[in-house]
Amino acid sequence: MVLESVLYAPAMDELFGDAALIQAMFDFEAALVRAQAELGLIPETSARSIASLCRAELYDVPALVKAAGTAGTVAIPLVRRLIENVSLFDPVAAAFVHQGATSQDVIDTALVLQTRKALRLIEADLLRLCGRLLALADAHKGQPLLARTLMQPALVTGWRCKILQWLQPLLRSAAELRRQADAALRLQLGGAAGTLATLGQHADAVCHQVSAQLQLPLSNGPWHVQRDRWVRLGAELGVLCGSLGKIGRDLALMSQAEVGELAEGQTPGRGGSSAMPQKRNPVGAMVALAAAQRAPHRVACLLSCMVQEQERALGGWQAEQAEWSGLLLSCHGSVHALADAFEHLQVFPARMLENIDAQQDLVFAEGLRQLLTRELGRPVGEEAIAELIAGVQAGRGPLRLLAQELLRRLGHLPGRVAPADLEMLFDVHATARAAEARLQPWLQQARGEFKSLQQGGGPGHEG
Amino acid sequence: MVLESVLYAPAMDELFGDAALIQAMFDFEAALVRAQAELGLIPETSARSIASLCRAELYDVPALVKAAGTAGTVAIPLVRRLIENVSLFDPVAAAFVHQGATSQDVIDTALVLQTRKALRLIEADLLRLCGRLLALADAHKGQPLLARTLMQPALVTGWRCKILQWLQPLLRSAAELRRQADAALRLQLGGAAGTLATLGQHADAVCHQVSAQLQLPLSNGPWHVQRDRWVRLGAELGVLCGSLGKIGRDLALMSQAEVGELAEGQTPGRGGSSAMPQKRNPVGAMVALAAAQRAPHRVACLLSCMVQEQERALGGWQAEQAEWSGLLLSCHGSVHALADAFEHLQVFPARMLENIDAQQDLVFAEGLRQLLTRELGRPVGEEAIAELIAGVQAGRGPLRLLAQELLRRLGHLPGRVAPADLEMLFDVHATARAAEARLQPWLQQARGEFKSLQQGGGPGHEG
Amino acid sequence: MVLESVLYAPAMDELFGDAALIQAMFDFEAALVRAQAELGLIPETSARSIASLCRAELYDVPALVKAAGTAGTVAIPLVRRLIENVSLFDPVAAAFVHQGATSQDVIDTALVLQTRKALRLIEADLLRLCGRLLALADAHKGQPLLARTLMQPALVTGWRCKILQWLQPLLRSAAELRRQADAALRLQLGGAAGTLATLGQHADAVCHQVSAQLQLPLSNGPWHVQRDRWVRLGAELGVLCGSLGKIGRDLALMSQAEVGELAEGQTPGRGGSSAMPQKRNPVGAMVALAAAQRAPHRVACLLSCMVQEQERALGGWQAEQAEWSGLLLSCHGSVHALADAFEHLQVFPARMLENIDAQQDLVFAEGLRQLLTRELGRPVGEEAIAELIAGVQAGRGPLRLLAQELLRRLGHLPGRVAPADLEMLFDVHATARAAEARLQPWLQQARGEFKSLQQGGGPGHEG
Amino acid sequence: MVLESVLYAPAMDELFGDAALIQAMFDFEAALVRAQAELGLIPETSARSIASLCRAELYDVPALVKAAGTAGTVAIPLVRRLIENVSLFDPVAAAFVHQGATSQDVIDTALVLQTRKALRLIEADLLRLCGRLLALADAHKGQPLLARTLMQPALVTGWRCKILQWLQPLLRSAAELRRQADAALRLQLGGAAGTLATLGQHADAVCHQVSAQLQLPLSNGPWHVQRDRWVRLGAELGVLCGSLGKIGRDLALMSQAEVGELAEGQTPGRGGSSAMPQKRNPVGAMVALAAAQRAPHRVACLLSCMVQEQERALGGWQAEQAEWSGLLLSCHGSVHALADAFEHLQVFPARMLENIDAQQDLVFAEGLRQLLTRELGRPVGEEAIAELIAGVQAGRGPLRLLAQELLRRLGHLPGRVAPADLEMLFDVHATARAAEARLQPWLQQARGEFKSLQQGGGPGHEG
Repeated sequence: MVLESVLYAPAMDELFGDAALIQAMFDFEAALVRAQAELGLIPETSARSIASLCRAELYDVPALVKAAGTAGTVAIPLVRRLIENVSLFDPVAAAFVHQGATSQDVIDTALVLQTRKALRLIEADLLRLCGRLLALADAHKGQPLLARTLMQPALVTGWRCKILQWLQPLLRSAAELRRQADAALRLQLGGAAGTLATLGQHADAVCHQVSAQLQLPLSNGPWHVQRDRWVRLGAELGVLCGSLGKIGRDLALMSQAEVGELAEGQTPGRGGSSAMPQKRNPVGAMVALAAAQRAPHRVACLLSCMVQEQERALGGWQAEQAEWSGLLLSCHGSVHALADAFEHLQVFPARMLENIDAQQDLVFAEGLRQLLTRELGRPVGEEAIAELIAGVQAGRGPLRLLAQELLRRLGHLPGRVAPADLEMLFDVHATARAAEARLQPWLQQARGEFKSLQQGGGPGHEG
Repeated sequence: MVLESVLYAPAMDELFGDAALIQAMFDFEAALVRAQAELGLIPETSARSIASLCRAELYDVPALVKAAGTAGTVAIPLVRRLIENVSLFDPVAAAFVHQGATSQDVIDTALVLQTRKALRLIEADLLRLCGRLLALADAHKGQPLLARTLMQPALVTGWRCKILQWLQPLLRSAAELRRQADAALRLQLGGAAGTLATLGQHADAVCHQVSAQLQLPLSNGPWHVQRDRWVRLGAELGVLCGSLGKIGRDLALMSQAEVGELAEGQTPGRGGSSAMPQKRNPVGAMVALAAAQRAPHRVACLLSCMVQEQERALGGWQAEQAEWSGLLLSCHGSVHALADAFEHLQVFPARMLENIDAQQDLVFAEGLRQLLTRELGRPVGEEAIAELIAGVQAGRGPLRLLAQELLRRLGHLPGRVAPADLEMLFDVHATARAAEARLQPWLQQARGEFKSLQQGGGPGHEG
Repeated sequence: MVLESVLYAPAMDELFGDAALIQAMFDFEAALVRAQAELGLIPETSARSIASLCRAELYDVPALVKAAGTAGTVAIPLVRRLIENVSLFDPVAAAFVHQGATSQDVIDTALVLQTRKALRLIEADLLRLCGRLLALADAHKGQPLLARTLMQPALVTGWRCKILQWLQPLLRSAAELRRQADAALRLQLGGAAGTLATLGQHADAVCHQVSAQLQLPLSNGPWHVQRDRWVRLGAELGVLCGSLGKIGRDLALMSQAEVGELAEGQTPGRGGSSAMPQKRNPVGAMVALAAAQRAPHRVACLLSCMVQEQERALGGWQAEQAEWSGLLLSCHGSVHALADAFEHLQVFPARMLENIDAQQDLVFAEGLRQLLTRELGRPVGEEAIAELIAGVQAGRGPLRLLAQELLRRLGHLPGRVAPADLEMLFDVHATARAAEARLQPWLQQARGEFKSLQQGGGPGHEG
Repeated sequence: MVLESVLYAPAMDELFGDAALIQAMFDFEAALVRAQAELGLIPETSARSIASLCRAELYDVPALVKAAGTAGTVAIPLVRRLIENVSLFDPVAAAFVHQGATSQDVIDTALVLQTRKALRLIEADLLRLCGRLLALADAHKGQPLLARTLMQPALVTGWRCKILQWLQPLLRSAAELRRQADAALRLQLGGAAGTLATLGQHADAVCHQVSAQLQLPLSNGPWHVQRDRWVRLGAELGVLCGSLGKIGRDLALMSQAEVGELAEGQTPGRGGSSAMPQKRNPVGAMVALAAAQRAPHRVACLLSCMVQEQERALGGWQAEQAEWSGLLLSCHGSVHALADAFEHLQVFPARMLENIDAQQDLVFAEGLRQLLTRELGRPVGEEAIAELIAGVQAGRGPLRLLAQELLRRLGHLPGRVAPADLEMLFDVHATARAAEARLQPWLQQARGEFKSLQQGGGPGHEG
């Protein structure tokens, strides 16, 4: 849909286009007959005849889609058209089409095949984004940043701390996506009611052969109504959309004109407005935020579809299938858009410092309170800090100056608080460096995880 | 998507296809220049030049869709291509394209136009379904039906009672859809930030003219970030999907082989299985159940998108737009499939009676308890009824016989409970008739509402 | 739950406490026997005995709650304890307890009674908030505000325009809540399967009497499995949470230190931090945002629970009941917190102007483009504006100056653009006034709606 | 809430009661001071004073809850009351309370502690249920069952096949819950903005000590706004609710009077009706279905709360916290109720056979079609089978007989289809046995997984 084109990336859109999905279904049908021929259950020539007609471009795809609406499933007209075609060229072979399988076998397996490709696209962009974040961390050592909590200035932190906070969940999702993909990307082949009855004693052998044909591992039994692994993979996509949405939100907030710490780089034709020529809209953040708005509801739909009746469900499975691709498309759109945005991200370190300075040292109030309550006792110290803060807010100067005055009045809490101690408390750069120092090992760990992901084989690679 | 084709009806699918949506956007652009020409703000000839190029078939729609992905909104490439085209034929006119409007004006209004058409399709099928339900009620006067609560046999009710329970919420939704459509189907025209600044003192006049051009009422101000009326309409679609889902569930339950009270009629090519030749799947129920699974999550997404930032949102609006059409498609698919199913519904009154009889009168236990506790006092009466029920469950005969025996033993609670009283208590047909009698006025009311809906002008008709 | 105490207001919490809900159930039981006595169906003295024991404080509420868990519904132990109590004092009366009714009648009606009270609390705070917004609009005539779209500076608007944008959806929700409350707040009394079988020919009369007792209108039949009106009311609560969330988001964004246009007023003990003494967290915005995060999912749950089986549902109804109160609590918490926040809202008009000024007139680029493309033709005008904007961004001065220079170079587009015209284009205050002028009638309309809501009787007032 | 008492189990309810949660927060505060004393950062005596007052029973819990509402977080009044108490007994110690930590540290950690306990309760019931399913599989070898797809009769399967289908996802969830618990149950200790600034160089050491005190592993940095691991755990609870809901649905369907293959055993006081004395409601299924209705929406809420602003979120975190416990309560309620239901499950093997027999061999049509199309070629075979099915549906006898007749007419497809072959095709018991035979290895695997789960240490056990 055109209104989704903004939120999806083209490569992904094609994977779930009608032609691609129908081809994946034909791939299943071809594998099924090849497997049976391999085992001597049907003639080799029949398998060849059938497989040679399992090509989507030989069919009127829109007509198939329309017939699906009438039949209640796309598998029925697809199998029927295939039989008709086969009958023209090799009437004997027609009896061997789709034998043993049921609609859901075809469709589930086709979705698995396309999902495997989709996850690889997602991983590629995810690693691209992680790589950019690591590069960003390398480029900005020691850069102070205003930490904001509940959308108000809090303390001074390091800009790298924020980058690491963005990065870690992405690495975890990359690993988890692989793991859940390995669990979920399995051949579906159970026959009409999960028993593969019509294949008789050859059922297991056929399964193994089809699995080999499609390079898709077997499951321990059909999963027609056992959607847990599939939905778990979907949930992980939702989690990733959430982690990306968090980055998108931060990016949008830091890119506000009044904050001005970041800006999505300017790519020609991107982020403009149809009305306002000066506009540079943060399109990457927008896409990530939109995906994070939508994905949770799709995950919820998958979860609520798990309550499937008996051996194959009425409504729940069909709804799940219809929702599935949207989740992959959203997730990929999000990671792709953010990876692009971070390719061209502009960082404004000077604004980061200015925004801290504008706080008039109030962001050091916590440390000062600790010092004062420790030295003066709790109630006295609390009162003193409250008074100082009120002073700053009344415009009597930055906290540092008012604190110095106070200490002077108190004779520097003799023997205990030297002016230099106070200076240290208010040192923006030292604070940022200290914050960064703690995360050094975690950054190293992240770097290691990133490298090992780069070398690994991608989701569902064992296929 | 092919996997959704089962769940959507073709007529609806087209309304939200790329070509149709882009045409609706062009309709907005054409109305905008015509309005300005009407008011003498731009030359009449310019308006004509522009409007004559506002035809989707003149453009490479897939290219537009692709460009939208880059730009971050489809309005930008659409306006740009329009300007390019206009420039070729009438360079002067090019300056007047899209003047005053913003991307969201175009897109919101285009969706409103298509939604108006969609709601008419929905209403047509909804009234078709209501008509079938009323006809069904007429055809089955006095038919007893086993009432089931918590999925266990409860009492005897009338089959018409169930039909009325299905019907009433549909009529309420039909009325509510009209009402919410009247509120929500409004022209969006606010300009870049809702102020229509560039139209200056002519802003209101232009709005009125565009409104007249598109036959779309004005709102009291722009609704760029006021999504309440729009979402309320969406929520009503969700409510309707829920009421339809309830019918779908009942239909599925009553069509189970072991229950056998209803069956979706057999249309050629519908409801088969790719594996099992004997299968007749309840496709109408399936579609309604799938829609009822999906719609709540779409409504939730619309609701969560309401938290829109400032004058126009980042992510929330884009997500809302992307979700919108799916709700209309699901809702229409559901009502269309059920209307079809009820066109050919098979009712098996004999099975309805058999299923009651199989209960061995236990469905009259409540009435018997009331009689016994009233006559024997609470604890004695409760014990007596419990014993009788245990007797039935142990296979000692139907409740009626055991109750007769008990009353004989008690001497018919002399002077108070005649054998005929007891007979009445266990009279299946009388019970069904009594249940039906109470609903007569409500059925009449429903019939009246149905007629007045048939005569009314449809959702958003005043446009 | 303590973690929800932050998000809910105490008055509301009590309405859905165990004691209050159980009392509401007893109110139903009392009304039921009073109604039957009124009609001469049971002895007046029995009704009095029963009603006198329908007081929650006579029962061990936690024990009842625990027994509910075992029974599968609270109605069973409640009725049982009531019978036991009645039996002690008036054994004859015991037979008349709960006669004709079913668990769902008691519980649905009890929830309706509490919901009516809850909606009144919500409306009171909603009107309080609307009143504050109107007062704010009165206090800030002509105040310019930076309009922001996609979280980037867009144009100049009026601060009152934003206030009106916040206000209108609230007024619509207030009216809609009343309307949906009138539809949904209905007596539930259908008996075991909706037929009121055990009340026989007196069924309607009993319904009318109970309705009068509880001052709760009747419905056209039982609504055990017709949840549409109930869910529609719930959806409206969700819509209101969305509109409030939008205000909360704007409030949070405008209260950021770097923006500084608004601040939630300081109430003692509110909005502090356990760590940072300088913190003033925008608690009102926080509560509204949290409610807007949660409510959509609750609405979705209600919607998905609509697919109820046959005459009374298994699981769907129980889930709906469990979710219901949370929606009311969230919604009230949100409107209450925002009403409080707006009572003490601090507005900083100077910062509003500063934020506009910091844009260096780029917020007038749209108007300038229109002028230039009109005067110079499209491609030339577009290039000119692009160059000017690039100039501003490169630090060559505000757009106004660069535009003046350009016009001077072009000889003021002789006869067509006077320097004064240009001045007008860049006039912040005139722009804000113009934006406000258009909304004057809508503000009047809002004021009128507010007054009429103040005089109306509140949701479900006819009860 | 009383309406949730039906759906939750008491043991779990307590874990998230106000007193228990507040105690868990005090446990955090006590561990924090003990850790600092251990490291010599504060006096041992101060730590002891503080820790001795970290007991919920010393505080007015409802007052704390109320104060939380005002403050915007429960941590503030809790810390304040603690300081007040400590000040009375040991004024010097007061300065050391809560030092370094922030509200979110206390609350996140407290929820982690309670979640660990909750997961153990869930696992216990989950393994109990798995054990019952395995026992059931042992008890019913070779039992045929009607497989139903799309709620219509499909084929013959084995009852053990269904049991295995129920069991496998539960075992996967048990393993996954442990894994996700290990990842998510981590100490939260980041201080005001995640930098632990006020603890200076001792930050890491304090973290290690607090971790040891609470037996809660550390994370690689604070996770204030990295909610992925936490939400992933929540999603797994949602997946489990889905798998349990599927069992609940099947149980409800198979327990329908007309199907009669299963019944929840009768426990005194469970599953009755307040109106109908004969009722035995499937309460276990009801609870599981209600949980499966609710959980997806809670997961969605957690996912949508992931978009957290900057260093600590406004609204999103608070909403997440408020939703969390409901998910655990629902999930536990579901598994507990089903475990109970399966303890007393009644199985009716005779009805299983009767329901198959009532299908008149149509459930063998797939096999017969395969045979006929293979022997007669596709179109002829298809026509033949269609005719036979129509014959059965027209009441001309079971499929077996009609097929025998046909084969006789065809002369048994000489040399290829013996009457015995046909008999085999229609052999209910052989079909069930064959279906079961294939799953033998998977059943063994499940048994092995179950045993290893029984021996493992439970979720978050390394704590």
